[in-house]
Amino acid sequence: MNALPNALEYLQNISRTSLFNEWTGLEVTRAANGEVELRLPWKEELGQYSGFLHAGLIGTLIDTVCGFTAAAATGKRLLASHYSVNCLSPAIGDVFLARGKVVKAGKRQIFTTAEVFAEKDGVRKLVATGETILMTAVE
Amino acid sequence: MNALPNALEYLQNISRTSLFNEWTGLEVTRAANGEVELRLPWKEELGQYSGFLHAGLIGTLIDTVCGFTAAAATGKRLLASHYSVNCLSPAIGDVFLARGKVVKAGKRQIFTTAEVFAEKDGVRKLVATGETILMTAVE
Amino acid sequence: MNALPNALEYLQNISRTSLFNEWTGLEVTRAANGEVELRLPWKEELGQYSGFLHAGLIGTLIDTVCGFTAAAATGKRLLASHYSVNCLSPAIGDVFLARGKVVKAGKRQIFTTAEVFAEKDGVRKLVATGETILMTAVE
Amino acid sequence: MNALPNALEYLQNISRTSLFNEWTGLEVTRAANGEVELRLPWKEELGQYSGFLHAGLIGTLIDTVCGFTAAAATGKRLLASHYSVNCLSPAIGDVFLARGKVVKAGKRQIFTTAEVFAEKDGVRKLVATGETILMTAVE
Repeated sequence: MNALPNALEYLQNISRTSLFNEWTGLEVTRAANGEVELRLPWKEELGQYSGFLHAGLIGTLIDTVCGFTAAAATGKRLLASHYSVNCLSPAIGDVFLARGKVVKAGKRQIFTTAEVFAEKDGVRKLVATGETILMTAVE
Repeated sequence: MNALPNALEYLQNISRTSLFNEWTGLEVTRAANGEVELRLPWKEELGQYSGFLHAGLIGTLIDTVCGFTAAAATGKRLLASHYSVNCLSPAIGDVFLARGKVVKAGKRQIFTTAEVFAEKDGVRKLVATGETILMTAVE
Repeated sequence: MNALPNALEYLQNISRTSLFNEWTGLEVTRAANGEVELRLPWKEELGQYSGFLHAGLIGTLIDTVCGFTAAAATGKRLLASHYSVNCLSPAIGDVFLARGKVVKAGKRQIFTTAEVFAEKDGVRKLVATGETILMTAVE
Repeated sequence: MNALPNALEYLQNISRTSLFNEWTGLEVTRAANGEVELRLPWKEELGQYSGFLHAGLIGTLIDTVCGFTAAAATGKRLLASHYSVNCLSPAIGDVFLARGKVVKAGKRQIFTTAEVFAEKDGVRKLVATGETILMTAVE
């Protein structure tokens, strides 16, 4: 369950404050029932080698979807302190999707996990997983 | 020691094949004695919030410097299979530096670590650490 | 699906070859449909502080259940190259359960995740999560 | 620099409160100038396969030396919230040594790294690295 009544709009507004998120073309497409989904259409400027999404952008998707999922779940200001990325398969696609989940929301730390999928010609494939530890901001 | 005679030029050429590295403005500034250094000047399009380098770009620096360090040390084609990022301090600076080190170069796996520094008004500060596991590409 | 016909018996035999697993009292209680479950009854010699399971033993459960899950799924000899542990809640219980899942089984690398639960007076609680990267052994 | 005047004695006393540390035979052999060293003599009950230190005990060494290093550096009560282990080489030896280092001691989080060495017939080899994130205990 989300702590925020208008989680989708709230996260879309946060995302707009990041010029990097804006430049990449990242969109927040869903925030409901404790799950957040991001969508990143492929463009050549996102590439590591021809056609591959840069591993740094896979990490960006994981860090961002985990942060947004935790923000929607807790309604708190949060900062990532640790994240990790598993590159399972080549990240080749027309569009990339990231989904986050809260594992444990404590008073000071929130543990989250994420999955990243590549869609190519309508076929969806899991290409990466990751996890993030977020800290509540000290007011 | 580097396995490659012209490691710096070699890595600069690899980096140019990544449109994302090019767009960010990332430069390979050193590759000698087993150490590689990257430099990323701040620009607003790299921001998460006003003035902060996006955590996804901290991961990009760690993934890239580890990959380049391992490539220089082994002379092999490599793929990152795992990386992790510790965000130690707010990543605020005029320029960011990343340095990689090989911990263990095995036949199939190369383990590396990296540090990311922010420089502001000439003062350098460690803002993040990370590590990467790379696999040798199957020919 | 398990690659091995008698996965449970096979894993119980492997576990018996580890004197450390034997000493801790760890049992393999389930190996079916791609899932493996371990059970570790509490005893004082497993403690970090009074009543808390040592974090090293939480890691032992994660490393072991991931390795066994991957072995059952692939039928291959495997070696852990990386594992990580998230300590979500104090590990206090009469018995601890660990469950593993394969995320991706590649030719050389197998990615797995695990959950660790504590049971106290019949109430089960998630106390830790973790993940493991295993390499197929070179013959 | 250590925050505690008698760090070595202090850590040896903490270690004695863990029945698991006592059972394994783990000793705190050094705590000076911000570095802590642990020593674990091999015995068969610590084995995963014949002669190999169990990966769970490699994690135990990393978790413990990082926790002790952070405790000596800060003088605070701490709890590990995350740790990771890289298994670089087979952990075969007569004795194992672990050394910790504080990377960043913040108000709420302490980031640490560790190295684990195996000694066999007087030859020392790096067999594992790891890192730990510790939280200050809420009073």
